[in-house]
Amino acid sequence: MLSVHTSRIVRSQLPSICSTARAAWIQHSHYSTSTPAATPSKTEEHRSVFDISTKVLAESDIAKHDDKLFITHPLFPHPTFSQEDCEKVMFEHREPKTFGDRMACKGIAIVRGTFDFVTGYKKPRNEAEEAHGFKGTRYEMTESKWLTRVIFLESIAGVPGAVASFVRHLHSLRLLKRDKAWIETLLDEAFNERMHLLTFIKLGKPSWFTRTIIYVGQGVFCNLFFLFYLANPKYCHRFVGYLEEEAVSTYTHLIYELEHNKLPKFKDIKIPTIAVQYWPELHEDSSFLDLILRIRADEAKHREVNHTLANLDQRKDRNPFVLQIPEETRPQPENGLKVTKGTGWEREDLTL
Amino acid sequence: MLSVHTSRIVRSQLPSICSTARAAWIQHSHYSTSTPAATPSKTEEHRSVFDISTKVLAESDIAKHDDKLFITHPLFPHPTFSQEDCEKVMFEHREPKTFGDRMACKGIAIVRGTFDFVTGYKKPRNEAEEAHGFKGTRYEMTESKWLTRVIFLESIAGVPGAVASFVRHLHSLRLLKRDKAWIETLLDEAFNERMHLLTFIKLGKPSWFTRTIIYVGQGVFCNLFFLFYLANPKYCHRFVGYLEEEAVSTYTHLIYELEHNKLPKFKDIKIPTIAVQYWPELHEDSSFLDLILRIRADEAKHREVNHTLANLDQRKDRNPFVLQIPEETRPQPENGLKVTKGTGWEREDLTL
Ligand SMILES: [Fe+2]
Ligand SMILES: [Fe+2]
Ligand SMILES: [Fe+2]
Ligand SMILES: [Fe+2]
Repeated sequence: MLSVHTSRIVRSQLPSICSTARAAWIQHSHYSTSTPAATPSKTEEHRSVFDISTKVLAESDIAKHDDKLFITHPLFPHPTFSQEDCEKVMFEHREPKTFGDRMACKGIAIVRGTFDFVTGYKKPRNEAEEAHGFKGTRYEMTESKWLTRVIFLESIAGVPGAVASFVRHLHSLRLLKRDKAWIETLLDEAFNERMHLLTFIKLGKPSWFTRTIIYVGQGVFCNLFFLFYLANPKYCHRFVGYLEEEAVSTYTHLIYELEHNKLPKFKDIKIPTIAVQYWPELHEDSSFLDLILRIRADEAKHREVNHTLANLDQRKDRNPFVLQIPEETRPQPENGLKVTKGTGWEREDLTL
Repeated sequence: MLSVHTSRIVRSQLPSICSTARAAWIQHSHYSTSTPAATPSKTEEHRSVFDISTKVLAESDIAKHDDKLFITHPLFPHPTFSQEDCEKVMFEHREPKTFGDRMACKGIAIVRGTFDFVTGYKKPRNEAEEAHGFKGTRYEMTESKWLTRVIFLESIAGVPGAVASFVRHLHSLRLLKRDKAWIETLLDEAFNERMHLLTFIKLGKPSWFTRTIIYVGQGVFCNLFFLFYLANPKYCHRFVGYLEEEAVSTYTHLIYELEHNKLPKFKDIKIPTIAVQYWPELHEDSSFLDLILRIRADEAKHREVNHTLANLDQRKDRNPFVLQIPEETRPQPENGLKVTKGTGWEREDLTL
């Protein structure tokens, strides 16, 4: 059973933000007060070669594919997130300050705009659009389209942490220098994104065309990100910070649709074993909404981490999310959701 | 104080092995019976631009550079190795069976031969050479030369695990497939090698020329290994297996020289805090020999892991060192030193 949670999203006082992000989730202040719209079923169109849909697996198929063999402890154990903290997560935007910030923000806006147009997705700009959900247009979201979207995004999202940790590992080896624990958080991020992907892949089967795009997409993105990370890691972390802002935005939209019963196929879906074993608070009877709430919280944490890392000296500063200073009295970052700063920690607020 | 341990190396019945490896450690059967040769001091030569020596840090310098700030838990906690098991580790050679095996073995022989010649190192071929230690020739090993050697080797040794885990992570993301835990062991190996390096770097300061070679060396090796790993991961693991055989051989020689008091500057050296925090059995008063015994055991484990991975189906098989099968009755691999197989586990002996 899908339990409908009441999102406790507080209206934020966001400053003016970079053009495309302005249209995002800043209006989403009172989910719990807007009326749930009943949209019982959405039909999949006829499949062509260029079909980008994902087949939503039936309950029996999910059970069949849910191999429990060999799944053991997660390599990077997930911190515990309370339901309340997960529900509090909201879209937050970091105001670009430097030229590099603006480039990173613009870059994400262009990439996202193109991706949205091609896949037929529109961010709702206000509560009316959100409630109506672009019904009957090419922007109407079905369960199939949601799965295509999140599978593609998670496949891409697993790249930056892997590239960054790899480059920093090699850097430490060839300069004979310690890394100050950045690698740990970056690997954890890459692992976390891969767990998101492996979870979704248990719920839907993407078409061959989608798989091909994913394959080629990684080739392009991974090589570009690698070169950029060698050249300017700081703005790569900023770029990922903005990417994660968009991820939070997307999952907030999905959570809205789940809470308002717009996606009936996801209503009673059983979450896969891999998710139950990874997130400490999830159990066999947890809902798909519980799962997405946790994934959104993960993205919010990536957003905070990457915006913070972008504020640091890439060569000298410790990673404040892992290396703790026992005597420190000022609040400092941590891995969980108890202490968060959506737009990242400023360098002057950290003891490095 | 350096406590002189008695190595309990049992004479092995090694079959005929690939040409260059034949000259290695097969004769090292009775370390404890050969007489310690007293060689009180070895002088460093005059430093030129092309000087590849490493300055052995004095006790006071080591203490100064030994920053205890920020060092926390290791990302991949080290399993506990007993002193007895560490001392039992010995050179073992896997007989090449296929054409690829022979290429990998030959490749290592050539690389090692070149490196040995350039750096002025010779593997002792018998007990007489070992006891005499090439005294007075360019092959005589000083503390400085040992540090140059191990620092260079560890800097290179950290590459394969990082490349392999990175490639497999990307593979999992773009094919939407689970990895079956290979990444975990490969990352652990890369981390372990980097800990070896960071430990040694606390004890000696390589010359600028050495640092340059290390920098350039990584550029060449990393790119080559990356391309080879994309093309044929199986024989890359075999190559690393043979590389680790050589690492065990080198550290066995170092252990011999330490046990026979041939390296006085290492006698009472304090091991760095990073080593104490990483290896669970080491403490502040552990000797340099205790440290090297553990590093050799690590290399022996890498040898076993990589020879085993080379025997597996790279796409389908589980990593038997991490994913355990509860019902399995046949002995299966594990992470510690209790169950080992120096030449790797054959595929037919594993439940995959
Ligand atoms: Fe994600
Ligand atoms: Fe993310
Ligand atoms: Fe090593
Ligand atoms: Fe090794």
